[in-house]
Amino acid sequence: MTRIAILGTGLIGTSLGLALRERGKAGIEVIGHDRYHDVAKAALKRGAFHRITDMAKQAVEGADVVIFAAPLLAIQQLMADVAPAVPPTAVLTDTGSTKAEVLKWAQELLPNPAHFVGSHPMAGKTEFGPDAAEATLFDGARWIVVPGVTSTEAAIEVVENLAFTVGATKMVMDADEHDAYAAAISHVPMLSAVALFSLMRSSAAWPELSMMAAGGFRDTTRLAATDPTMAFDITVTNRTHILHWMDRLVDTLRDLRERVAATDAEAEQDLFKILSATEFDYSQFRAGKVGRVEVDPALDQVTPFSFQEFVAGGWVRQRMDAVFRYQQQRADEAEQAARERPKR
Amino acid sequence: MTRIAILGTGLIGTSLGLALRERGKAGIEVIGHDRYHDVAKAALKRGAFHRITDMAKQAVEGADVVIFAAPLLAIQQLMADVAPAVPPTAVLTDTGSTKAEVLKWAQELLPNPAHFVGSHPMAGKTEFGPDAAEATLFDGARWIVVPGVTSTEAAIEVVENLAFTVGATKMVMDADEHDAYAAAISHVPMLSAVALFSLMRSSAAWPELSMMAAGGFRDTTRLAATDPTMAFDITVTNRTHILHWMDRLVDTLRDLRERVAATDAEAEQDLFKILSATEFDYSQFRAGKVGRVEVDPALDQVTPFSFQEFVAGGWVRQRMDAVFRYQQQRADEAEQAARERPKR
Repeated sequence: MTRIAILGTGLIGTSLGLALRERGKAGIEVIGHDRYHDVAKAALKRGAFHRITDMAKQAVEGADVVIFAAPLLAIQQLMADVAPAVPPTAVLTDTGSTKAEVLKWAQELLPNPAHFVGSHPMAGKTEFGPDAAEATLFDGARWIVVPGVTSTEAAIEVVENLAFTVGATKMVMDADEHDAYAAAISHVPMLSAVALFSLMRSSAAWPELSMMAAGGFRDTTRLAATDPTMAFDITVTNRTHILHWMDRLVDTLRDLRERVAATDAEAEQDLFKILSATEFDYSQFRAGKVGRVEVDPALDQVTPFSFQEFVAGGWVRQRMDAVFRYQQQRADEAEQAARERPKR
Repeated sequence: MTRIAILGTGLIGTSLGLALRERGKAGIEVIGHDRYHDVAKAALKRGAFHRITDMAKQAVEGADVVIFAAPLLAIQQLMADVAPAVPPTAVLTDTGSTKAEVLKWAQELLPNPAHFVGSHPMAGKTEFGPDAAEATLFDGARWIVVPGVTSTEAAIEVVENLAFTVGATKMVMDADEHDAYAAAISHVPMLSAVALFSLMRSSAAWPELSMMAAGGFRDTTRLAATDPTMAFDITVTNRTHILHWMDRLVDTLRDLRERVAATDAEAEQDLFKILSATEFDYSQFRAGKVGRVEVDPALDQVTPFSFQEFVAGGWVRQRMDAVFRYQQQRADEAEQAARERPKR
């Protein structure tokens, strides 16, 4: 009998329970705990747990594996609460979105920090809470495994097996590396969505804007729907990396803004190249090509905006002809307007 | 027999053809033209058109309705090309994402500008081209109808009927109003996605970042997949409004950045309130509540970040307790560290 305690029965905790019960070997017992009784009850009703307890300490009694699946700052409190009751052989992990602070807390609070290995399953959805949980949430997702400096090989293996069991693919990295990457690929996109949505929401034209909004706006801003507790905890536990990437995003936007503002032919060509290169890169990314796609550097020497690879075909030249025509016409119009302006 | 000519057989043009053939009354004939023969052929194969022609002029001969469904700068050229062949009774519209320039071109180039009424169907998807087309693309979408100053009532009615036939809901506004709103809700989100994606794509860590990227990043940046020709034409024909909203987005991001950077208790509470208010507003928006949700102003007096409405429940106070504990602990740690620092 393997007993697994999951502390926090929201989207991630309940999805883990469902996946483990559906796919784990026979003889698994999954215990759930949530600080909110109603949330734990809803998770039990989903069939994610054999039983639930209102006391976190009770949940970890006799557990072989303990998973902290609560918002980050709540994990800190949970570690302190359960520490006296954690069996000496138990392996512990978490599902928090930042890792340096969590490993620090494990080191400070847990009786046997060598049995703790951090996790960050890269899976989620717009909705949260146990009702949104799915046994398939982790299918094909990356599961970042973040060992502490003292973590034992055995503990690491248990956590890797956990990831494998629920359908995820492991990726091992250290805490600082993880937090820097997560800030770039997850936390700053979230804050960018918050900024974009709140800007439009606070506009006097929001009644019209919200009626016009199509799928593009909804998707671009959907991370604004992140549970605010999670969003807050992520931000304050990963401040340094987040600030670095927010600054770079502001710089990139300002750079792009200047390119949009510039009306000379060269600037417009650069803008078009940027848009083309980004669309090309995004389609490669979307098609599942991770990392870089190497192309023959002789094909194009485009370097603006840090794009090293950009495939230009005949249609780009055709396109440039249309752009030049438009530029020429605007120049003619400006000249015409200048001629027609009344002389003083 | 009603003859409808669609100039441009990409995602929008082909979807219109499919929708009109599926839902239009009997006796409709839909003619397609695209400057790229292969694209028109693919659209014909999808069953969107009764026939296709390589010459735009041929497509509009005898047409009752002409729809310009090409990228914006190509619309200008198409108008010039077909002007001599447009029947005097034909009603004309377009599907471009900006409207002031299109109406100006119609005024300058078309033989009877009073028969032209601008359109902007607020529908799209990540993929483009005729193979991505769907007869249901416009179902439930808003279709912005933008009459010119001289447009006749009869022409406006034809375009409104067109929107209705393909499943969309009309929304009438003038060109400047449209362009300002579209910049906010569509064009700047697109450029924001371009900035965010290209920033991460140009990072030395992209191989790792792209492996870690989950649905959140893909959705936040999906407008980076906009056809670069469309994206470019939108940007240069709606510059003023786009620059206005890009500046405001940069300001909002910088403001949020300062809030993330601030570590005092009040700043952290404000940050949490912003994240909560945004999540609340987004969930209302996502649930289809357009416009503003009016709440009793006595419920909360939160005003940071221009949020006028914010419902705070008991959990916010609970949450604040956790935040205070964390702040207190960090203050203790800082004090401890200061004490342990070797004195010189």
